[in-house]
Amino acid sequence: MSVYPFKSIFLIVALALYVSETLGLSSPPEINGNLTYLWPLPSEFTHGNDTLSVDPGLLLAVGGIGGNSEILRAAFDRYRGIVFKHSDGLSIFSRLRGRRPAYDINKLKVIVHSDNEEAVYTLLQSMQEMTESRVIGVMATKLRTFGIIFTLLFIYVLCRNQLANTVYGALRGLETFSQLCAFDYGAKSVQVYKAPWYIRDKPRFAYRGLLLDTSRHFLPIDVIKQIIESMSYAKLSCHRLTVCFLFMFPHIDLKLCQSVNVMAEVDIPGHAESWGTGYPDLWPSPSCREPLDVTKNFTFDVVSGILTDMRKIFPFELFHLGGDEVNTGCWSSTPHVKQWLQSRNMTTKEAYQYFVLKAQEIAISKNWTPVNWEETFNAFAGNLNPRTVVHNWLGGGVCPKAVAKGFRCIFSNQGVWYLDHLDVPWDKFYTAEPVEGINDASKQELVLGGEVCMWGETADTSNVQQTIWPRAAAAAERLWTSREAISTGNITLTALPRLLYFRCLLNRRGVQAAPVTNSYARSPPSGPGSCYEQ
Amino acid sequence: MSVYPFKSIFLIVALALYVSETLGLSSPPEINGNLTYLWPLPSEFTHGNDTLSVDPGLLLAVGGIGGNSEILRAAFDRYRGIVFKHSDGLSIFSRLRGRRPAYDINKLKVIVHSDNEEAVYTLLQSMQEMTESRVIGVMATKLRTFGIIFTLLFIYVLCRNQLANTVYGALRGLETFSQLCAFDYGAKSVQVYKAPWYIRDKPRFAYRGLLLDTSRHFLPIDVIKQIIESMSYAKLSCHRLTVCFLFMFPHIDLKLCQSVNVMAEVDIPGHAESWGTGYPDLWPSPSCREPLDVTKNFTFDVVSGILTDMRKIFPFELFHLGGDEVNTGCWSSTPHVKQWLQSRNMTTKEAYQYFVLKAQEIAISKNWTPVNWEETFNAFAGNLNPRTVVHNWLGGGVCPKAVAKGFRCIFSNQGVWYLDHLDVPWDKFYTAEPVEGINDASKQELVLGGEVCMWGETADTSNVQQTIWPRAAAAAERLWTSREAISTGNITLTALPRLLYFRCLLNRRGVQAAPVTNSYARSPPSGPGSCYEQ
Repeated sequence: MSVYPFKSIFLIVALALYVSETLGLSSPPEINGNLTYLWPLPSEFTHGNDTLSVDPGLLLAVGGIGGNSEILRAAFDRYRGIVFKHSDGLSIFSRLRGRRPAYDINKLKVIVHSDNEEAVYTLLQSMQEMTESRVIGVMATKLRTFGIIFTLLFIYVLCRNQLANTVYGALRGLETFSQLCAFDYGAKSVQVYKAPWYIRDKPRFAYRGLLLDTSRHFLPIDVIKQIIESMSYAKLSCHRLTVCFLFMFPHIDLKLCQSVNVMAEVDIPGHAESWGTGYPDLWPSPSCREPLDVTKNFTFDVVSGILTDMRKIFPFELFHLGGDEVNTGCWSSTPHVKQWLQSRNMTTKEAYQYFVLKAQEIAISKNWTPVNWEETFNAFAGNLNPRTVVHNWLGGGVCPKAVAKGFRCIFSNQGVWYLDHLDVPWDKFYTAEPVEGINDASKQELVLGGEVCMWGETADTSNVQQTIWPRAAAAAERLWTSREAISTGNITLTALPRLLYFRCLLNRRGVQAAPVTNSYARSPPSGPGSCYEQ
Repeated sequence: MSVYPFKSIFLIVALALYVSETLGLSSPPEINGNLTYLWPLPSEFTHGNDTLSVDPGLLLAVGGIGGNSEILRAAFDRYRGIVFKHSDGLSIFSRLRGRRPAYDINKLKVIVHSDNEEAVYTLLQSMQEMTESRVIGVMATKLRTFGIIFTLLFIYVLCRNQLANTVYGALRGLETFSQLCAFDYGAKSVQVYKAPWYIRDKPRFAYRGLLLDTSRHFLPIDVIKQIIESMSYAKLSCHRLTVCFLFMFPHIDLKLCQSVNVMAEVDIPGHAESWGTGYPDLWPSPSCREPLDVTKNFTFDVVSGILTDMRKIFPFELFHLGGDEVNTGCWSSTPHVKQWLQSRNMTTKEAYQYFVLKAQEIAISKNWTPVNWEETFNAFAGNLNPRTVVHNWLGGGVCPKAVAKGFRCIFSNQGVWYLDHLDVPWDKFYTAEPVEGINDASKQELVLGGEVCMWGETADTSNVQQTIWPRAAAAAERLWTSREAISTGNITLTALPRLLYFRCLLNRRGVQAAPVTNSYARSPPSGPGSCYEQ
């Protein structure tokens, strides 16, 4: 049994009774004799050297006060479908051959210590009070005809602290469990290699985001659902929609919010030209269509109205107010705006600040924590509401400045984490470090995490998923796995084989993840070959 | 009401009571005020100018002796899911606003004249005895509070002849119905514009195929299922798997066969090098790995064994034996093969024929109709089994020669219908004509149809769907719509707007169809914009 660093403050006691070779269950892993590939890597784990078969009729046994969770049962059914995808075809073959196989594992036990399914939506009282915590899953074998054998396969501990223990941690555990399961073509059943497994895991950052731009190209709700589903495979948690609200409104589906938090963005006062299509008064003039008209109460009434409507749909505590790329040039050339500025003795830069701060007040009044792109911090850090989360994008070095002033920060450096930059390879995504340049541990805590950004100028339904994956997964491991456990050194040896495997896993689950090692993202495979090598 | 050519031999009586403007149901189509876009175009239809709303709780009423079909009920549920995708979000909004809308249409009546769900698998006694025939769907409005209003929306007649009237025709009708339904953002409900509709439809060709190469890159079962599902949107019917059988076996799922026929291919004696990995004796020598060893009984025993196993899985009457690109060069340089040829006084070309004919006999003995690539016809047409279906690919002009000799033929001219040829635009796919060069109507009948080919050298899970769609749809209309009704002349005006719309429909249904008008297939959109224009 190989042992990985295991610094648990809890004592984990595991009974492991090895299944004998005579049961015929010792087929080697399909891909590689030495490793079961997990992505993202758990922070701590050990494993053994046994192979166990899993019953396609796997049952879920839930314990703890959160044991009645509908979300958990639905997720279990979903994962059972994923793990036993081949069981239909298999049963046909079994029937043809008259085989009735016996299995080592027929029950998955999950213990959930909180019955609060809503906790994930109130994440940010303190962002550190992680809700994906301390869920323990224990797997035991069935009663065999020749006696009782317990084989402890799998202990999964997600912990951050002892405050919260919700069902969402169990979902992470189910994902890990599903990655331990592999269909074995020899044994013709689902197997877990290298058992027993002891896994103790927790996310390094609470905020592990993917920005999805639904404005440049309309993304149908089916595609958004597919992407959210695939995010959970990589243990991404937060998801941001750039909301083109006129189009998006009829599409909002509350059920989307169950597995990830959805942070909406209303990008003001710039990037809002389209608003004037419905309300031309929001444009300073027909020839000056953005930034929005800062002078009118009507502008802020509309912002407030939109945020009121959106509050009913987005329970997540963060709301993104944009604030980037604001060119105030045409404000000063629009007579009534110019007059308004003069009467208040304001520069256009001050008016930009006035707009952003007023929007922040509106968001806060609706019980939202405002997020703004870094331009607002760069321009008037001293006046930003102290609750503001600064969202980096222009380059490195912003989060260190933001946390030094006490702000929280999200890392999205465009040089490494913009998915629409097709020339940025997986390893650049992988090695990007959100707390780079921040040495003080208490300041590092102010970095909520990071977000990879899928801007949609050249990404639509046809190719958005192959642009997101697999590179978003490289960032996902950076955000999930502890700094001690994440692959370093020659990542071509330590991380790449796992990422190749994870890309194939995404493919098997129907996600259009592109080849990993193409020099250009989302380019086709260069020739025939195995997914595990492309 | 505009009237299209309507040559029905049945009299169709339609009661149409127009819904008054005062009901607030007369919103214009979202995309275009003049047209509802159908793809492929029905062979005959008329429509009116009314707008009807459709109840999200739409019921299915089935009549005829096939009314108890499970397949029909499952398909109805699937299509209801597609048509009312937005109803969740909608109901949230309705609840917020306290609205309880009334609908014009709350029941879909479908009459199926045959209870034979298996008929589709015995298609080829005569390929002309189409099973997708004469299914009539009639839609009527619900009982309104202020009186009884019947609004006949939709008569759908699929006919080829009077021999078969199975549930599969009803599935085609459901697809057409779903394309008539559009979510209206103004009315916030699903609407049918231009009602009432009278549609009489039938497929021009029985064989409307897509080849999926699962050998060059492994395609997971989820992806194959997605592709089969999307084929039904374009009314494609036949589907061919190039079977890499060692990998495919555990994956076969009989349920796949319900909506399309699956023709498997075992491509022998060439393109079978991988067989020797399992059975090295199939290779003439370690340095001569293909064509398969023609001299050994073992070779044909393996072929027979494989075909026996596959017969249990593939109920479709056609089976593809390949026979293409056979380079017999190394046969004559392998001593024992050379000796075998000399002892029988055979040339290598004659040995190739010997192999192909022997494989045909094996397939026929298992109650299969053999399909062979055109090389077999080109090399020894006179000796081919007369039941052979000749599969064109090298260029134009082969089907005319094949049908002249009494063979049936499938059209797949690589210059126009190979999807891996990325420089072939949608309009080349659209204008390709399977019976080109065949004037005699009785000979035209021998062209079963055609097949677009998705060879997988540079297509894997990440991009196969964007390589297939939308160009496969262009061919699908050629294969479905009658020659009288298909768009001709300036197809940029008559077909392109509908194809743009159909591509968006595929996107909405989660299919990664690429932009239509790119000069290169599967390239990304060139910039932001509406799906309806890209």
